Amino acid sequence: MLLNEGDFYSENFSYSMEDVKTFATISGDFNPIHIDEAYAANTVFKKPIVHGIFALSVFSKMIGMTFPGEGTVYMGQDVSFKRPVFVGKEYIAKVTISAVNRDKHTATISTEILDAETKKICVVGIASILHKEKI
Amino acid sequence: MLLNEGDFYSENFSYSMEDVKTFATISGDFNPIHIDEAYAANTVFKKPIVHGIFALSVFSKMIGMTFPGEGTVYMGQDVSFKRPVFVGKEYIAKVTISAVNRDKHTATISTEILDAETKKICVVGIASILHKEKI
Repeated sequence: MLLNEGDFYSENFSYSMEDVKTFATISGDFNPIHIDEAYAANTVFKKPIVHGIFALSVFSKMIGMTFPGEGTVYMGQDVSFKRPVFVGKEYIAKVTISAVNRDKHTATISTEILDAETKKICVVGIASILHKEKI
Repeated sequence: MLLNEGDFYSENFSYSMEDVKTFATISGDFNPIHIDEAYAANTVFKKPIVHGIFALSVFSKMIGMTFPGEGTVYMGQDVSFKRPVFVGKEYIAKVTISAVNRDKHTATISTEILDAETKKICVVGIASILHKEKI
């Protein structure tokens, strides 16, 4: 089935401290704001925050696994980190097709992370993808 | 020491299949192009490629740990994935200060991943960061 402008998909998610520590290990980013509760308590954020790049990985999952899923080529991502994504807190990730080019089989997708409780936008951006069958 | 326009920093890096499988686990993106050699052999890429978002994590490390390092707030990232980043292959990640705003303590940083052998650009983008002491 072809994806069309306006089609969307969302998932609730959260990252545990264990996930964040694992990301620190494989990325090499051991910045204490992400993994040290005592350190984070003395910052403006008060609590550990998920690495911005790791927060983005929810879109890698959604786009690579489900929407459009297998066969997707991720061509680009623009993103602004508006509010912190806290470790252990629940968020909503939403992807919406904003434009489609049928000749090139490409689409731009609005990518948002919202606080599941307040619905405030924490991360906002645009992904560019290619899928030969679904776009 | 304050960072200035034109200052740069680079690191060589590679991600192993173990790293990529761990990223698949914590992100939930088990797209076989990243983790299945037999599947990848039948694609245009021929070999498993690193998740684009995981490739970006080298900048999280460099910016969060070294340049400018601890205390950096990652505000945004624009990125284009121009060529695949292969699992197990060596790359160069380079970050260059492209503009500085001393009043706001913010900077934009050119972020590039180059093939360590051919020097071809694989990933290119711009990060926006804040650091109260170093910018």
